[in-house]
Amino acid sequence: MAYEETYIEGRNAVIEAFRSGKTIDKLYILDGCQDGPMATIRREAKKNGSMIKFVGKERLDQLSRTGKHQGVIAVCAAYTYAELEDILEVAKAKQEDPFLFLLDGIEDPHNLGAIIRTANLAGAHGVVIPKNRAVGLTATVARTSAGALNYTPVAKVTNLGQTIEELKKEGLWFVCADMNGTGMYDLNLKGPIGLVIGNEGEGVSRLVKEKCDMTASIPMKGDIDSLNASVAAGVLAYEIVRQRMS
Amino acid sequence: MAYEETYIEGRNAVIEAFRSGKTIDKLYILDGCQDGPMATIRREAKKNGSMIKFVGKERLDQLSRTGKHQGVIAVCAAYTYAELEDILEVAKAKQEDPFLFLLDGIEDPHNLGAIIRTANLAGAHGVVIPKNRAVGLTATVARTSAGALNYTPVAKVTNLGQTIEELKKEGLWFVCADMNGTGMYDLNLKGPIGLVIGNEGEGVSRLVKEKCDMTASIPMKGDIDSLNASVAAGVLAYEIVRQRMS
Repeated sequence: MAYEETYIEGRNAVIEAFRSGKTIDKLYILDGCQDGPMATIRREAKKNGSMIKFVGKERLDQLSRTGKHQGVIAVCAAYTYAELEDILEVAKAKQEDPFLFLLDGIEDPHNLGAIIRTANLAGAHGVVIPKNRAVGLTATVARTSAGALNYTPVAKVTNLGQTIEELKKEGLWFVCADMNGTGMYDLNLKGPIGLVIGNEGEGVSRLVKEKCDMTASIPMKGDIDSLNASVAAGVLAYEIVRQRMS
Repeated sequence: MAYEETYIEGRNAVIEAFRSGKTIDKLYILDGCQDGPMATIRREAKKNGSMIKFVGKERLDQLSRTGKHQGVIAVCAAYTYAELEDILEVAKAKQEDPFLFLLDGIEDPHNLGAIIRTANLAGAHGVVIPKNRAVGLTATVARTSAGALNYTPVAKVTNLGQTIEELKKEGLWFVCADMNGTGMYDLNLKGPIGLVIGNEGEGVSRLVKEKCDMTASIPMKGDIDSLNASVAAGVLAYEIVRQRMS
């Protein structure tokens, strides 16, 4: 799948993009710029969960391809997000128990790409990411996914906790990674499952954790705190694979 | 541990650095520059396994902190490498079977950092990297290791195959990751072990693979070829952890 990041520059163009329902991953806004149209843009960004970066004029000029950014540049995802139903359909079509990754606020595009790659190879049917406080499907994500983004559907949801509730009705169990959880080898991770991976710095948020049925910990024998988020996702995913195979 | 990359600029300074035995990870050399001193530098670089990047004058000027690079800038590792014996000593002191990671040409510093982080948490006693065709302990590696570099010793060796032979005399078994290997769950990975992880693009080189006692494959259920190198290292390392714990 060919991919190009689309840049939308200028206030009216950006407002129009929001109104037409385009997925805007990131906004660069001139620091200190606070007039009416800009307030509209920030409101739309908040509503749609676009990440905002306040930058200086120099950086904006550098990013601009038209030279007419008027203090705002929006970066759009050229990849289309799937619907949650599509992911469940994939599992159904393969006659397999659903196996989903839910990412609670992964911020590093390299991690997101590596996790989508892992999801594909571990036989997961799809990946769910939240709209807020998370990186979207950018060019870096596509590249680091090593092609997996062409096969593994990614859905973007407004509220991860709510999505978990909905998926529970479909029979899924949820396990989240947490260093204070039960040793992952002692849990039963078979059957329809959603693997919840937390944010790089803070782990799984409290509200999401409370929705999970199980908390799994990876044995830590070292001196530091935690594995890289994509490595942790891989280790947990393959414990699920192992249990499913045995 | 505080860390700063040391930049050495100018022909004589760089030649002097090589002669005094400094670990030079990377050299930026002005593209097309081929005089006598530069030939000496390239010869030393080859001998010591420093990575060479040929760049334009603009890039060199940008990298230069003195403004007097004379066509060459060397980047030195401020971290000290351990000796192989040190790593075995760590295992001995802990009264544990040695568990080492051997990285056959990891090029991406983010991967190297994440792997050192994994090695620390999986309870490995050290990491071995080759001098050639591989990234060294740069600032990026230190940062992505999330502090693990302060605890987990990293040794740099001239010839990975030779090192494997030496370590076999110490009783270690070697397993390398390869998609055509035996399923990792069917191998006995207990006891003194060296886990060999291949280069991002090409996997484990033939010569190194031939030295290994076992070839382990991670089950692949997806559409793409391979996991990210640091994820693969994590998945295999934790299969070793699981078997050691059971």
